[in-house]
Amino acid sequence: MSQVIHVRTKYVLILGAALLSVVTLFVTYWNNDSLSLDGFRNTASSSSSSPSSSSSSSSPFSVFSSSSKKEPLFKKAPIGSAKCEAALEYQKTVLYNYYKHMFDGIKYAAIINFPDYPNKGDSAIYVGERELLKDLGIETVYMCASLNDYSREALQNSLEGKDPKLVAMAFQGGGNFGDLYPDHQALRMQVARDFPDIRIVSFPQSIWFNSEDYLNQTREVYSAHSDLRLAARDRESYGRGVNYFGLTNDLALVPDIVFYLGPHPELRNQEVTTDVLVLARRDNEGGQKHGNEQLYTSQFSAANLTYRIDDWLDWDPPSATDPEATFEQKGLDRYYAGTEFLARSNYLIADRLHAHVLSLLLGIPHVVVETSKMGKVRQYHYTWLRDCTQPGVSAVVDSEEKAIQMLLEWKEKNLI
Amino acid sequence: MSQVIHVRTKYVLILGAALLSVVTLFVTYWNNDSLSLDGFRNTASSSSSSPSSSSSSSSPFSVFSSSSKKEPLFKKAPIGSAKCEAALEYQKTVLYNYYKHMFDGIKYAAIINFPDYPNKGDSAIYVGERELLKDLGIETVYMCASLNDYSREALQNSLEGKDPKLVAMAFQGGGNFGDLYPDHQALRMQVARDFPDIRIVSFPQSIWFNSEDYLNQTREVYSAHSDLRLAARDRESYGRGVNYFGLTNDLALVPDIVFYLGPHPELRNQEVTTDVLVLARRDNEGGQKHGNEQLYTSQFSAANLTYRIDDWLDWDPPSATDPEATFEQKGLDRYYAGTEFLARSNYLIADRLHAHVLSLLLGIPHVVVETSKMGKVRQYHYTWLRDCTQPGVSAVVDSEEKAIQMLLEWKEKNLI
Repeated sequence: MSQVIHVRTKYVLILGAALLSVVTLFVTYWNNDSLSLDGFRNTASSSSSSPSSSSSSSSPFSVFSSSSKKEPLFKKAPIGSAKCEAALEYQKTVLYNYYKHMFDGIKYAAIINFPDYPNKGDSAIYVGERELLKDLGIETVYMCASLNDYSREALQNSLEGKDPKLVAMAFQGGGNFGDLYPDHQALRMQVARDFPDIRIVSFPQSIWFNSEDYLNQTREVYSAHSDLRLAARDRESYGRGVNYFGLTNDLALVPDIVFYLGPHPELRNQEVTTDVLVLARRDNEGGQKHGNEQLYTSQFSAANLTYRIDDWLDWDPPSATDPEATFEQKGLDRYYAGTEFLARSNYLIADRLHAHVLSLLLGIPHVVVETSKMGKVRQYHYTWLRDCTQPGVSAVVDSEEKAIQMLLEWKEKNLI
Repeated sequence: MSQVIHVRTKYVLILGAALLSVVTLFVTYWNNDSLSLDGFRNTASSSSSSPSSSSSSSSPFSVFSSSSKKEPLFKKAPIGSAKCEAALEYQKTVLYNYYKHMFDGIKYAAIINFPDYPNKGDSAIYVGERELLKDLGIETVYMCASLNDYSREALQNSLEGKDPKLVAMAFQGGGNFGDLYPDHQALRMQVARDFPDIRIVSFPQSIWFNSEDYLNQTREVYSAHSDLRLAARDRESYGRGVNYFGLTNDLALVPDIVFYLGPHPELRNQEVTTDVLVLARRDNEGGQKHGNEQLYTSQFSAANLTYRIDDWLDWDPPSATDPEATFEQKGLDRYYAGTEFLARSNYLIADRLHAHVLSLLLGIPHVVVETSKMGKVRQYHYTWLRDCTQPGVSAVVDSEEKAIQMLLEWKEKNLI
């Protein structure tokens, strides 16, 4: 008899769980739709091209759903594309679960170090963070870009009446943890000093210190904080992080936050104006100087391919220069300007990490050139993207000559 | 009009997804039940204490389900317990997602290096692997323990008629990757040589090489394999892995596989025979020698606590010595013998990593003593278990004196 009751109870539980699933799915549907409309109401971009518009792919359930039949992201290289897409999906899953854990119980966040400058990669990082916080049901109550606009009082005011246990400071992810970009690090240290008891969660960063003094200062401030959690986005940065902060702060190895946005092939729906975009960084980070006109002209004209050399650092979309524009608007507009910039070419040669990242998410076949000793791209690639090294998908090489040869070879084999 | 159709389509999709959830829940229920019965049919343990019996907690959906109200794992330290339990749940989630990704498309596995010896920690690792493979719907078609029972032909025969793309070799996780235990490593190298084109997936390991020659041999074999993926379980091992294999093999940082089993407070339902178990390793790995009788007698008798000093290395449960017993039976029986061994005391002082791990999962307050330079426990703790360093839950210290003092302090404060 007790066996019968036991079995019945189980079925009731199962039916209850099923009912819960239905409710959850409705709620997820409703939330995503309303959020995506809200987020884009005042921006230049149409809501149909927003990351949130593919609402099902950003719902937590989709992380485990078996993917339905769809066109390969890299159409002419379907087998390589499938392997790479699995790696992209995995990174999104890792990010969701890590930050769900880090922000457990948190309802309000302050974003520290919003990237208020034209670098499209850093804007993509902001958009990834925004999307993730939204999916976790966390409201962003404060944002600041630098020590110039940061104010302890303003941040304190934005938390007025809120239980401090429900609040976290979120440090912007990217390549600026350390002393390559000391202004950014100075802001973070100030916030850690000003709010010693509020949880601080870092979005994934590269870690790089040249000055031991500056490292020691940072360590002193970070270790004095009661609950500051760091995240490195590649294995070398993780190793440095362990050496520098491993005894005092929690530190995880997680992918770059832009992968949280997932594949967005629809962002390629742009008029193509050139065959190959050579995206060569003009800030010479790591001493890299690419974009030798003569080389490209001779090689590509022989293959009857057009090209142009450009960077996404120096210009802003018009809406982002509007003095009335909010940080959110600027971040989104710069992100879409960056993806549009990439989508106007069929193939890409680039030396920026986020040109690599966004080309993967958009499905643009590309080769990354890295001659920098920092090895930012290569270290990232080895940590998370080995499965994306596929003919017709992507590769990382150490010279522009090799990059050109590889693209031409893929073209000849009809892989791109 | 198209808008209306669009909305209708969405609702149909949602209802379809809901229906799928119902079906999935039924299938999950059915699978877990039948597998758990099957797995335990011939063992001494009752199925009610098996990891699979809490079927809902091992279903992939539960990873995202909000946890229902339940008793804290560490009853007298509820706040610390909640933080630690979140860290335990997170590790399970990481493991599920990583191996789901690694075994994507795999239907059959061969387990290489089954731990056919009385060490209860290694048996727990096997049980974690077994549970995970089961949850991923992967059938184990072959197992071997060492070069003595391994046979290329037997393994080949077990794969007869199976598409090689659906097969993976699974390397047992634990502390034996490297030359601390060269026999284990020799077996893995042989399998990598014998099956150069079958995917090899490692369960999480510590990595430790003393001999550069042996490291070079291993690297040569591993790099020659077409698809061998490594996993380190702590940050130091990960760093060594990056240095040794980082250019040739895929390498991830994931938790010890035993955390896949999740909390099992019901395994503490044993008659308690002593207050404090001092689990002191007798193999002296890392040069550790603990278990000074005089010290414990003087300290604990003053506090009116009984204790005993023992290790779980040298003895086997009777069923595991049965010459007819399968590897599966032996692994499960040793695992349950290990948890029973721990559960017969109220508190624990230990120098073994898996005494730490299993005490956390069972909810036994404990202090780990680590004097070894390898820092196996400490490195693991810093990588994944910082949030379990809580009064009344667990701690890692560097002397037996400190461990005793900490337990006595917790006792005095009524935290244990």
